[in-house]
Amino acid sequence: MRLSRYFLPILKENPKEAEIVSHRLMLRTGMIRQQSQGIYSWLPLGKRVLDKVNAIIREEQNRAGAIELLMPTLQSAELWQESGRYEAYGKEMLRIKDRQERPMLYGPTNEEMITDIFRSYVKSYKNLPLNLYHIQLKFRDEIRPRFGTMRSREFLMKDAYSFDLTLEDAIHSYNKMFVAYLRTFARLGVRAIPMRADTGPIGGNHSHEFIILAETGESEVFSHRNFIEFDIPAEDTDFDDVAGLQAIFDKWTSLYAATSEMHDEAAFSAIAEGDRLSARGIEVGHIFYFGTKYSEPMGAKVQGPDGKEHPVHMGSYGIGPTRLVPAIIEASHDENGIIWPESVTPFDVVLISMKPGDAACDSVCDQLYRELGNAGKDVLYDDTDDRAGTKFATADLIGVPVQVIVGPRSAASGEVEIKNRKTGAREVMTVEAAMNKLIG
Amino acid sequence: MRLSRYFLPILKENPKEAEIVSHRLMLRTGMIRQQSQGIYSWLPLGKRVLDKVNAIIREEQNRAGAIELLMPTLQSAELWQESGRYEAYGKEMLRIKDRQERPMLYGPTNEEMITDIFRSYVKSYKNLPLNLYHIQLKFRDEIRPRFGTMRSREFLMKDAYSFDLTLEDAIHSYNKMFVAYLRTFARLGVRAIPMRADTGPIGGNHSHEFIILAETGESEVFSHRNFIEFDIPAEDTDFDDVAGLQAIFDKWTSLYAATSEMHDEAAFSAIAEGDRLSARGIEVGHIFYFGTKYSEPMGAKVQGPDGKEHPVHMGSYGIGPTRLVPAIIEASHDENGIIWPESVTPFDVVLISMKPGDAACDSVCDQLYRELGNAGKDVLYDDTDDRAGTKFATADLIGVPVQVIVGPRSAASGEVEIKNRKTGAREVMTVEAAMNKLIG
Repeated sequence: MRLSRYFLPILKENPKEAEIVSHRLMLRTGMIRQQSQGIYSWLPLGKRVLDKVNAIIREEQNRAGAIELLMPTLQSAELWQESGRYEAYGKEMLRIKDRQERPMLYGPTNEEMITDIFRSYVKSYKNLPLNLYHIQLKFRDEIRPRFGTMRSREFLMKDAYSFDLTLEDAIHSYNKMFVAYLRTFARLGVRAIPMRADTGPIGGNHSHEFIILAETGESEVFSHRNFIEFDIPAEDTDFDDVAGLQAIFDKWTSLYAATSEMHDEAAFSAIAEGDRLSARGIEVGHIFYFGTKYSEPMGAKVQGPDGKEHPVHMGSYGIGPTRLVPAIIEASHDENGIIWPESVTPFDVVLISMKPGDAACDSVCDQLYRELGNAGKDVLYDDTDDRAGTKFATADLIGVPVQVIVGPRSAASGEVEIKNRKTGAREVMTVEAAMNKLIG
Repeated sequence: MRLSRYFLPILKENPKEAEIVSHRLMLRTGMIRQQSQGIYSWLPLGKRVLDKVNAIIREEQNRAGAIELLMPTLQSAELWQESGRYEAYGKEMLRIKDRQERPMLYGPTNEEMITDIFRSYVKSYKNLPLNLYHIQLKFRDEIRPRFGTMRSREFLMKDAYSFDLTLEDAIHSYNKMFVAYLRTFARLGVRAIPMRADTGPIGGNHSHEFIILAETGESEVFSHRNFIEFDIPAEDTDFDDVAGLQAIFDKWTSLYAATSEMHDEAAFSAIAEGDRLSARGIEVGHIFYFGTKYSEPMGAKVQGPDGKEHPVHMGSYGIGPTRLVPAIIEASHDENGIIWPESVTPFDVVLISMKPGDAACDSVCDQLYRELGNAGKDVLYDDTDDRAGTKFATADLIGVPVQVIVGPRSAASGEVEIKNRKTGAREVMTVEAAMNKLIG
């Protein structure tokens, strides 16, 4: 993409309304724009990152056997009356009447609708296990939306729903998502710690929040320091291996980790002092086993091997992509701007021409742009007439991992400079060496 | 994907509520499910097709220089008061109040919001031309939604918006989208004819609807038969070539083509009788130049080379992916089910095991499944215990272009049968020959 043809509205001033660094950087880099309170447009740079985050979430959901569909944003109130949540949900639910005066709502979550889909088609245990997910907009009318897309009203959520005949099977489905989440967050370049969350009246050990440690996190969290060192389950993990997944779950829940709501000071104090980690965190995922809470009132039953009907055991599994993007920035930035992990960077390379119009500069830049593109790299080619200082500042601000700087003198001798955004290290090398380094 | 692990809720009966074939087939194949009147879930099979349609739309928009972003579904009423459309829009607009009693709406289109984004950032003609698009849900509260996702209330739209300094530049931007649309529909396997549409009080020749001919189309259309033969602009079309694009536009608008609203009986009668085409059609795209209709009242101005401020010339360009899917089916099906064009098929191959559990069958199927997958093919592997007749009927119904049928006897001698869904032609060949045919 040539910057002269792109839409990258960099703000020169720090926006006053932004209280945390991710919000500030997302506004300054032109990733997002607020349209109404807590409602954002994702401008082109932000959209690219969001797409990459969604793609990784999707790959790991599919790997774990979940199947993608797409439910609508608007739901009829009737479904929620069936489950009993229509009255209970309160003012966070955006209630709407259509032109026929039928009560509708903008879905804040989809347990009711997915249960309705399930009960319409699935009648036998032979069709289980089943896990259906979508990545869809939700709306929650928060009283105090803030921190940009970290806590917005219209937001994107990946929500998966599992259906099983027995509690035992449901635990295996839960473990699949537990492992998928560990892999997802690791691939996004962040370390998320699973922490026991409140299961409410259902009880049990099967609700976990995944928390990224960050100074600006909204939650206070307490955990054993060793989580930082734990291995992430490998790409070839066998999701059908019941015992194998249970072992991963057991390991990742063997040490103390809790948010303030679930905090047990005595248990925490029992950890050796040097191993105690007390910090702030951002919730980026939440998985939850809730048994027959919806299948029972909504009649989602299957025939078991015993010939009788059984309400299915369900779980739900959420990740917020529009919250993950700022969470990644909170975990990875410096005073000059964002530092994207390679997996979600909006571009792989920024190619900076120091003097567009200069024959040597243009020739080297055009060659690199073409060849890197052919090799499958996404290149942002700064071919604008901006001053060098502006170009460098922009490249640092938007946080693309690698910068290739092409000046007229070095270009004339067939050389370019490569800068690593994270370390700041610079190297001068031939165009050919640069290609090998960037593609290799 | 193993069918035993997939969610493909085939309906045995023809759904009574479906009046047209695409609606019937989308329900029967478990592509969609109605959640409320005119509001649908896209079940896994449907979601796959929708994703492929969106990917092609996106590729062609990007090729033509349009830049993707993502605007939210909910908009504040204020923006629409600025343009004057808030009162004018009528009951199709879903009006909402949030918990603070602020008037909001579910966007039926995005001219106002994109104009607001533009005016916030772009101040100089040097940043033009600019074309921004998104693929996002819209809501129009139709009095009579019908025909499944062909005319639904919550639907997906790709809407692009162009910004130019002059009318002349705006025409070039218009032509870019005109050409992109011709390419998009051709890649989706349908022939769409651009027809002059009503431009309202603005006048001019720059509003076109793209119409697919289909018996069940809602519009009556009249055109010259030769459109069927016109060449589609090539992939390497130079979108910066002003005269070249104009020539394509001129050619594609040189013959008579009009919907009933714009029909001129005299002009149509002037066509030689054998060349007259009078048919029904489905509108799948609409492009529109509307000048300064929004930029003027909303103050979207740029500084020109003359140092003065000018309201920008705008156009908008819509395609409805959730309508295109049924339109493709209307144009491509037979009495046994859907016949997908290769570009949008949910799977590339259906692999039918006639006897799961038989050693030869399993061995050949597993090998083909693995090797086709490694070669990048999406395979639906029917490893279920269903009867052969059911498996064949399902494969025909869901319309995947190629079926590979593996029976125990032929498998034992290393042979499989390949069936072409469209022609019905069958061929027996070795596993190796089958691999070469399918991958080659």
